[in-house]
Formats: sequence, C-alpha cells, structure tokens
Amino acid sequence: MNYRSAMSTIPKANPLRVGFVGLAANKGWAIKSHYPAMMQLPSQFQITAVLNLDLEVSQTTIEKLKLKHAKPFADIVSFAKYDQIDLVVISVNVPNFYKLVIDLFKYSQENENFKYLFAEWSLGRNLEEAQEIQELASQRGIHTVVSLQGRKSPYVLRAKELVSGGYIGEINSVEIAVIGGFYGYERPVKSPDYLYELESGVNLISVAFGHTIDILQYITSSYFSQVNAMIFNNIPTQKLVDENGKLTGATKPKTAPDHLLFQGSLTQGNVPVSCSLKGGTPVKKFTKNLIIDIHGTRGDLKLEGDAGFAEMSNLVLYFCGGKPNEDSSTSAETMEIYHLRNYNSIVGNILRLYEAIADFHFKTNPHSKLPKDFARQGFRFDGFPTFSDALEVHKLIDLVTKSHKSGSSLKVPGLSH
Amino acid sequence: MNYRSAMSTIPKANPLRVGFVGLAANKGWAIKSHYPAMMQLPSQFQITAVLNLDLEVSQTTIEKLKLKHAKPFADIVSFAKYDQIDLVVISVNVPNFYKLVIDLFKYSQENENFKYLFAEWSLGRNLEEAQEIQELASQRGIHTVVSLQGRKSPYVLRAKELVSGGYIGEINSVEIAVIGGFYGYERPVKSPDYLYELESGVNLISVAFGHTIDILQYITSSYFSQVNAMIFNNIPTQKLVDENGKLTGATKPKTAPDHLLFQGSLTQGNVPVSCSLKGGTPVKKFTKNLIIDIHGTRGDLKLEGDAGFAEMSNLVLYFCGGKPNEDSSTSAETMEIYHLRNYNSIVGNILRLYEAIADFHFKTNPHSKLPKDFARQGFRFDGFPTFSDALEVHKLIDLVTKSHKSGSSLKVPGLSH
Repeated sequence: MNYRSAMSTIPKANPLRVGFVGLAANKGWAIKSHYPAMMQLPSQFQITAVLNLDLEVSQTTIEKLKLKHAKPFADIVSFAKYDQIDLVVISVNVPNFYKLVIDLFKYSQENENFKYLFAEWSLGRNLEEAQEIQELASQRGIHTVVSLQGRKSPYVLRAKELVSGGYIGEINSVEIAVIGGFYGYERPVKSPDYLYELESGVNLISVAFGHTIDILQYITSSYFSQVNAMIFNNIPTQKLVDENGKLTGATKPKTAPDHLLFQGSLTQGNVPVSCSLKGGTPVKKFTKNLIIDIHGTRGDLKLEGDAGFAEMSNLVLYFCGGKPNEDSSTSAETMEIYHLRNYNSIVGNILRLYEAIADFHFKTNPHSKLPKDFARQGFRFDGFPTFSDALEVHKLIDLVTKSHKSGSSLKVPGLSH
Repeated sequence: MNYRSAMSTIPKANPLRVGFVGLAANKGWAIKSHYPAMMQLPSQFQITAVLNLDLEVSQTTIEKLKLKHAKPFADIVSFAKYDQIDLVVISVNVPNFYKLVIDLFKYSQENENFKYLFAEWSLGRNLEEAQEIQELASQRGIHTVVSLQGRKSPYVLRAKELVSGGYIGEINSVEIAVIGGFYGYERPVKSPDYLYELESGVNLISVAFGHTIDILQYITSSYFSQVNAMIFNNIPTQKLVDENGKLTGATKPKTAPDHLLFQGSLTQGNVPVSCSLKGGTPVKKFTKNLIIDIHGTRGDLKLEGDAGFAEMSNLVLYFCGGKPNEDSSTSAETMEIYHLRNYNSIVGNILRLYEAIADFHFKTNPHSKLPKDFARQGFRFDGFPTFSDALEVHKLIDLVTKSHKSGSSLKVPGLSH
C-alpha cells in the first residue's frame, strides 16, 4: 500500500517553464521552500521568469541563483504577457496577492502557454476574494495548485493510509490543541503589522486553523457538517521585543484574534471534533504544542509537533490499532511510531506538491489516475490541492467568523462549486 | 500555605447523629465511600438510623457493621420523625432521590434535631428538581452538603492553591478531554437501564461533565460567562456483555448521550475553555483518559487520571511555574509532580467532606472562618459544597442542553439565589 508519489522517471518532454512571482535570493518564504524543492526536480521544472516589484531584486536573484534561463521582471503586465511561462508560482504576502493575480489574468489573456497557477494558501483575504480568483482560473481552464502542503506531509499521508485502510476502525472522536506561534503577548519589532491586523486575512484562523483543519479533513476524508466557534482577542495590546527578545518598552495594538475555540462534527460518522487554537509562543510544558488526537473503534492516531504549523513541521505520528476484517477478539494490535529524523518538512512538503504537479503534467506516476480536467483533489491520495480545495477551507473559515458573530452553531453547506 | 482541613482535635460535644438512607452492608456506593470515611471520624459522627426500602437490609447492615447506636428503618415517614438524627445522609440512585427528599422534608417538620442534609450529586434529575430541593432546605434553614467531592481532592486543592497563589500567572486557556466510562459500544448485562436513559438525569453530562466542570470552576475560582454545547448519541444501540466481557449477542437501546462537546469562556479573564467528553471504555493509547490542562502566563498545570471521574480518581498533578511578583526575567521556574501513591480517592475525598462538616459544626478548624449561616461554598478553600453550589452546576448543565437544542452559544446568567 503506497499511495505516495512514484516520481522517478525523467520526462521525455521539456520541463515546465516556471514564472516565479516573489522569489528573492536573500529573503522570504520562496527561497526557503519552493526554490530548494524545485531544484530537486531539474528535469521537470525550469525557472524562466522572476518577478519582484524591484527589478534589481529580480536581477540579483537570477544572478545569485544562476538561473540562466530566467528573465527578470518588475511589472506584472509584461510578466503576464511573457510567452515562456507554463507555470506561474506566486509566493507573496496574502494582502498583496489579490491585485497581482487579477492583473495576471487580465494581461495574460493572449498568452496561450500559461497553463498552471500555483499560489500560497490562503489564496485571498476572505471567501469572496478566493471565490473570485477560483472562478477566474476555472473560466480560463487553468490548472491551479494551492499550498495546502500539509496534505503532502508524510505523516499526514501515513495517517490517511491507516484511517482509510480501517486500521483504527470507525473514527469516533477528535481532539486538536495547537499553539499558533504569533499573536501572543509579545511581538518582534521587525514583524510586519499586517500579521496582527484583522483585515489582512493572515491570522490564527486563516493560517493555523486553515492548515490544521484541512489536514484533519484530508486524513479523515470528511468535511464538517456543523460547527461552532468562539473567537477571542484577549491581548489587544502587544509588547514589542527586539531581536534578542528583550522588551523595548513600546507597545502596539492588535486586532487579530489570539484564540479560537472550534467544535463541530464531521459529516462521515457524525464525529465530534474539539479544537483549541491559541496564539503566542509555544510554551506548554506538559503537552506538545501541536496535538491532533484521532480516536477510532479499533485504535488511535496521534500527530505531534513542536508548534501549531502542521503543514510545515516535522511531526511524529503515533499509531495503535489493528487489522480490519478480523475477529476483534483475536486480532493483534499493532503499534507504530513514525518519524523521519532528518526530514526537512519546510522543503519536503512543498517538494511533494511539485512532484504531484509533474506527475500530472508528465503522467510519470503510473498509480495516478487523475482525469485530464482534474479540478479538485478532494480526498484523493494523488493529485494536489487546487483552488477549489482551498475554497472548501475558506467556506469553513467564513462559517467560523459567522458562528462567532451570530453566537450560533451553523450547518455547513455541501460542496457547491 | 495550607488551606486544607486542620481536623485534629476531638470535639468536646457529642458526635453528630447520622441517619443514613441507602447504607447497605453488602452493596452500593455508601458502603465503599461514606461508611469507611465516617469510620475515621468516630468522635464526630455516629450512625443512629439506617433506612432502606427493605427493613431486613437495614437490620443486617446494622448487625454486620456493629452499629450499636443505630435503629433500622424501612419507611421514610418514621425515619423523618425519628428525633435522634442531626445529619441525614442520602445515598441512593438519583432517580429515587427526589421523592425521598420531598417526603423527608414533609414528615420531619416537627423534628427539630434535623439540621444537616448530605446528598449525592446530582441532587435532582434536572435543574427544576434541584432548585425545588434547594429551596425547601433553605426555607427550613437546613445546612446542606452535596457530594461534589472533587473539591476535596488533594490534587484539586493543590491546583487551586497554585492558581490562587499566582504560580501560573493569569490563566489564558484550558483544555479538557475525558472518557466517561459508561455509554460506549457495550453495556454489562447487569448494568441498570436507567444509566442509559436520557430521562434519568444520570449520564455523561450530569456526572462526568458536572463533576469535571465543577472542579475546573473551583480551581480557577471562576464561573462561565458563555457556553456552547453539542450533544451526540452516536451509539443508539449497545451490545450486551456478560461478567467476563463476552458479547451475549443481545442488544439494548440507549437514549443517553455518548459524547459532549463543550466550549466557552470563564468570566474571570475571558479564558477560552475547550472540553471533549466521551462515553465508553477508557482506551486512549497516547493520552491519559482524563486530562485537565490549564495554561497560564507563567506556567502550566495538568491533572491526569485513568478515567473521566476526577472526583473519585487518584490523580497526578503536574505543575510548572514561577513565584509571582518577581521580575519575570530572573524568577526561577519550579516543577512539581504531585501524587499520593496510596491515596484512596474513593474514600479520601468523601472523608474530607465529612471533616469539613465537622469543622463547621464543632468549629475545630482554627483557619476556617465560615459564617454561621454558611449557605454556599463558592470558591472558598474551607467549607463544603452545598445545594446552592450544586445549583450552579445544574444551571450550566441546563444551558448545555439548551445550547445543543437551540444551536446557539448562550450567555450564563450570574448568581441568582
């Protein structure tokens, strides 16, 4: 049983030509994750364009990284029209994303080579933005990829294997407790303000909750049927600290939440799920700062991490359960602790997304049976999360906000797009 | 700092004369908990009457336990009129309690010695019954005691000491996960039906949730301000098992819930609390089956137990924190694991309730400053939980049911009685 990517052969065709928005040699997420991942698949991907607001950044990046096939850009208009791009990767701060992608679609109308668009979660600042972007891509017939990369974590996939193989029986409860990193009592002086502003759409709910709950739904192969949420901003003022963690004496206001209580039931099996997501430094002493506890009629699964970023953390998976379809009185119980000591989860999970894109494009994975018009990964093992999958998470986040504001438990509407 | 009972002196007065309803030598809760507890305080308590529906049970119990001062009873009328009783202890199944206690009040009108009434949690089947009973006792000026004995657990008291001493700073989140024991996939053939019937009022919510949440409120010295609940009955049919745990092949319907999701905020500090209470056998492999995680700005507290009965389990308390009122950059962090290996929590917690009653009656505890008309323990260290405290828990349980039925998050009204 191995549903994971079987990427091994070198494609006969030319590599996918990548136009990268937001790749800078000296800072940012792209250089830490996307770039080293892509470098491991040189026959499948080739960077042909780099766009940053500052042309010099694009030029320096191309130079430093020795991207000999790449052309530097500083404006989205000419980038969008450049015909040497098959795959556009956009890795910018969420608040800047919307306008960029709208312009990309606008000015790339005549550009027939543009076939793939890879964007960071959370796609838009809110459900409406995400929906608009998804529709634009869908109308143009562009294949989309969203970095809900937790779905490619080996721990998440192993957990999903065990669940779908029946090794913990029917799931009957889930508990999640997470500390999200930001949004605590202190804020680094250098930290950008938008991280602490409600409107930016980058916060504990969109990031920590979004990734975590997508992972849970993916593992259990079930969406939610009803939810209730309570959102807290118990730390409206943060103390600023310098690079050494010393208090500077200054403070700044915070409007983003620092705690989310979420509970609900999964459609499949009416499973109760309890979820407590906290902002701030991961300091819990008697439990790990990321816990996903999944209980079933035959056993348990536990995912543990050092902080509430399951999608980019090196986790530990604990499993105890039994083989299905045996007489329960005699079936042997199996234990497994799954941990890849040297796994670089920041690069690794993103790498597996690129592998999945290559699998789809070059049809290199014989196990994969993705249709040509593959538009949503849903709960499949193969493929990759698309904007359509991202919308499902946005719908849930939207309900979280509505539930909190209205003080109601809300039904989750079924798949609608 | 020792707020615990300083019971040590032998009272000069006569012992409190106890009329015991539901004490049977060969079975039941009373003989396992109340009786051995009371036997450790022979100068303070003396059993003078035993009431069981079957006179023979009362007689045999008196004989076997050598209760030479006790008179056997088989009807509540003559028991209520018997003038050799100061303290009535009623330890019967909750569904039988209401009629008994109503009759007790009715027929004891002329009995001036009847001063104390000790009843098992949950007092009544629901808020209305509990309210009526509380009012009757209050009108008569009878001192009441309810077996929310978790408040006397040494682990709970130590946790409360640490919290109120500021050793974990301001509490900023709480997570509770519990497996409640009953209400799972299987039911012992001998188990009485009422445990699995919603109407009986003895279930996961009244028992496991009631005790656990009372303990949490007591430790944190805070009631809830808002709550949301989702109640599940995912196992509407249970398989019957014999004494050896073997399936008999028969099944029985179950209307009582098997899962409660509860979340809300404590009034004090607007603290988010997440709570998942599950029915069934405690089988979690990678976490204890009773967890109360309390996080603060200075440290953490964790209470662990083998199953979801914090009020009668021998727990382990983990503490990590620091002394308050010190410069946080220099204050030393303290660790403590608190566990009394041989502590008999079934007897011990009840014993401490009896000690507290004796402290109050004989004024034997110099630390205790209870007023003469002591009517509610609230969050005091000394004293004992009264029917008035029980009502607070019933109000919360009532809101749990209402929140579930209405699909709303509900505000908790303030203290009203």
